[in-house]
Amino acid sequence: MSVNVDRRVNGSALRSLLGSWQRTGPAYHSLADALRGLTRSGTLPLATRLPGEREVADALGVSRTTVTAAYDLLRDEGFLVSRRGSGTVTTLPPHAGDRAPVRLGTMEGGLVDLSAAAPAAPRQLADACAAALDALPSHTTSAGYVPLGLPELRAALAERYTRRGVPTTPDQILVTTGGQQAIHLLTSAFAGPGDRAVVEHPTYPHAIEAVRAAGARAVPVPVTARGTDLDLLASTVHQVSPRLVYLVPDHHNPTGTSLSAAGRERVRELARRTRTVVVGDETLTDLTLDGPALTPFAGGGTSDRYVVCVGSASKSFWGGLRIGWVRAHPDLVGALAQRRAHVDIGSSVLDQLVTVELLARADEVLVERRAMLRAQRDALLDRIARDLPDWHVPVPAGGLSTWVNLGAPVATALAALAHGHGVRIAPGPVFGVGGTFDDHLRVPFSQPVDALHRAVDGLAAAWAALGGGAATTRVASGQQALV
Amino acid sequence: MSVNVDRRVNGSALRSLLGSWQRTGPAYHSLADALRGLTRSGTLPLATRLPGEREVADALGVSRTTVTAAYDLLRDEGFLVSRRGSGTVTTLPPHAGDRAPVRLGTMEGGLVDLSAAAPAAPRQLADACAAALDALPSHTTSAGYVPLGLPELRAALAERYTRRGVPTTPDQILVTTGGQQAIHLLTSAFAGPGDRAVVEHPTYPHAIEAVRAAGARAVPVPVTARGTDLDLLASTVHQVSPRLVYLVPDHHNPTGTSLSAAGRERVRELARRTRTVVVGDETLTDLTLDGPALTPFAGGGTSDRYVVCVGSASKSFWGGLRIGWVRAHPDLVGALAQRRAHVDIGSSVLDQLVTVELLARADEVLVERRAMLRAQRDALLDRIARDLPDWHVPVPAGGLSTWVNLGAPVATALAALAHGHGVRIAPGPVFGVGGTFDDHLRVPFSQPVDALHRAVDGLAAAWAALGGGAATTRVASGQQALV
Repeated sequence: MSVNVDRRVNGSALRSLLGSWQRTGPAYHSLADALRGLTRSGTLPLATRLPGEREVADALGVSRTTVTAAYDLLRDEGFLVSRRGSGTVTTLPPHAGDRAPVRLGTMEGGLVDLSAAAPAAPRQLADACAAALDALPSHTTSAGYVPLGLPELRAALAERYTRRGVPTTPDQILVTTGGQQAIHLLTSAFAGPGDRAVVEHPTYPHAIEAVRAAGARAVPVPVTARGTDLDLLASTVHQVSPRLVYLVPDHHNPTGTSLSAAGRERVRELARRTRTVVVGDETLTDLTLDGPALTPFAGGGTSDRYVVCVGSASKSFWGGLRIGWVRAHPDLVGALAQRRAHVDIGSSVLDQLVTVELLARADEVLVERRAMLRAQRDALLDRIARDLPDWHVPVPAGGLSTWVNLGAPVATALAALAHGHGVRIAPGPVFGVGGTFDDHLRVPFSQPVDALHRAVDGLAAAWAALGGGAATTRVASGQQALV
Repeated sequence: MSVNVDRRVNGSALRSLLGSWQRTGPAYHSLADALRGLTRSGTLPLATRLPGEREVADALGVSRTTVTAAYDLLRDEGFLVSRRGSGTVTTLPPHAGDRAPVRLGTMEGGLVDLSAAAPAAPRQLADACAAALDALPSHTTSAGYVPLGLPELRAALAERYTRRGVPTTPDQILVTTGGQQAIHLLTSAFAGPGDRAVVEHPTYPHAIEAVRAAGARAVPVPVTARGTDLDLLASTVHQVSPRLVYLVPDHHNPTGTSLSAAGRERVRELARRTRTVVVGDETLTDLTLDGPALTPFAGGGTSDRYVVCVGSASKSFWGGLRIGWVRAHPDLVGALAQRRAHVDIGSSVLDQLVTVELLARADEVLVERRAMLRAQRDALLDRIARDLPDWHVPVPAGGLSTWVNLGAPVATALAALAHGHGVRIAPGPVFGVGGTFDDHLRVPFSQPVDALHRAVDGLAAAWAALGGGAATTRVASGQQALV
């Protein structure tokens, strides 16, 4: 897209935006990754004119060849466009978001879509919708704008927290347009240009994008097979004084690890002692497949100024309901409600009423959902063990995906090849900062068993075409995981 | 709210953020207005430590007394908090957004709420919802994430534009979570810190906030009783090279004026010639009450890179449906869909299906809606003419409100007093930049006639208490219009 190109960024400003962009591997790949990230997140607005190659090379202390190769790659991918007289300008690939809604288990365009880890709606949705329609007339005489959320939904969510052992009042709940909006609101409320936000690494990709969209830098703390490194989290918080820490304590996306009860307490103490806002994303908390339910991230604290929880109806119920929430101190809830007024004013009244009804049916919905996910997880793991015995596949105790270690940095290449074999999947680097995790692949088990079987067929064919992991060709990919 | 206060802003940075903050009236009021605006919009993130009074006074070249008075006012209003050891820190008033949904025509808490200009749902909503539920099962086997919008809604909206004389294909439509999200997405896509965006003045308040939230500066172009000053618009665009122009061409909110057909063509030519994105907010286009329908803002152009339209289901149908849209070049539609993925992923599937059904019933809905609004407008104007004969009240040819000239800068005081007489209303300065328009009041006629009568009773009592406009006391107010 070519629009007004009065916006320019010079070499030194670009250097400052890029920060520490260099990773292992070819420098032009690292530079392209970093520029792509800045463009996608909006840190570099659309139609910004980039400096010439020589100026960038001088500013970054790299060769001009590196810059030329990075620009070429981004032009090929559709993230840059060059025009005579206008220089090189940021853009986004045409129609990059233009795809039909994913139909789970079907082969739309021949593809099984594993790029999102999100299940279909529960059978109880129809009843919940019918009940919501019965409740609707008492709302349609209003203007329909409810920045804080409907009182009945705030009360139902507060009661749910309270029953889980976290005493909560409705004024501690803000209803949002999905969990993603909660993350976006919190990030933009606390972090601005030049600030730092600590994230787990790997993590949920849209959280990294929300941090970058605020102009802030995502500072990664590693998650290993044993979980988030809490020693490193504490030292990082002390070193970089982040404005926000974003964690997925329950069935972490994508690794599947969970914080222990003691680890949660340690995180809460860190938040209070350093007066740092720590956001715990509890999107997957209802999806414990093995063992007892996890202890709530908020602990037993009634109203904490630093420990903030984000929840969502997307995974417990359905992503088509754009309902999420924040549990926080009432003052923060009020402040966020003011800010969301210029973002989207309020959330769908109908979706809020449906969510109230689904919460009333949650026990039944979740028993069935967990049984379904257990069966799908086991089917996926069995089939991978049979057809892809080289892969190291952890058995997640909950959530919606497993974080496969491929043993070689070929995930991007594999994902590109898999597309030709009927599978859309997000390679590891989507979940990291700056091109890391190319030896990992997130494989969701949120789809029906027959679709998972077809997906493993496609992945196995792609793996064979790669030479069983022996190949290390890196294939550039513009793929993006939705969840 | 007190959180991590590591963020600081120094005097010179604050001066740069404030820009040209001085207005007529006391300097401390202007400074407080500007700081409040920066805090509300998020340009100054929550919990930012402001410089000391002496440093601000030096940086701005004003007396220390001015800064002290501005800080005191903001502390009283709850926008600043001072703590020993932490200095003076930005915050937002507790529970500022915490109010129940507005019930039109009822006296909740004794109040008639005229702060939003938004009608209740049409009677056809129930049928549309029932039909949407019938269509839902074909969507619930998907994950429910649709960044671009459901194909059936995009097709219905494209067809509606085409029938209005603007040939449009579905790939030119992005479905958003209300018109407000469309404005927010476009603003943050094109404008960043230090950029300028041109807005009409007065204008829709959440558009100003969206510009500020992007870190950009809103450059005002006046709207008089004869409409937007297009000469000044053209010269402003040439002078300040804005990244974006935001206009309300149809029944402008709040003045009620509309661009002529020739004016629209002039704006489109300006957009193309200067390669400036001009966003036309068509939220009120269906609500022409007198005379023929307005010519579409997009003209007859099939696919324009600079002329972008925003639409909404909120005023034609109901605000509780959080559905809006962008009509733009397909490349921009794809780019915006990518960006919205880290904002809220997608819009409610159910609301989209309901909107499809309401679009199929739009002719009937809108005939009834316009008849209702005509009756309410006439009832409001009659009653004001009888009880408040000093006011100058234009007769808007469409939309949802009239922009009353009070003849004296007392709107903020009047609104504060009106609250005690059972009326919540947004004074003129809410629709301006930096405390202007205190001689104006937006009075919506979106409520039932009996509520409008009670509202005029309350306004007349407040007006009498003010001394019939003779008083000029300025009362600080934290009120905010929702639409």
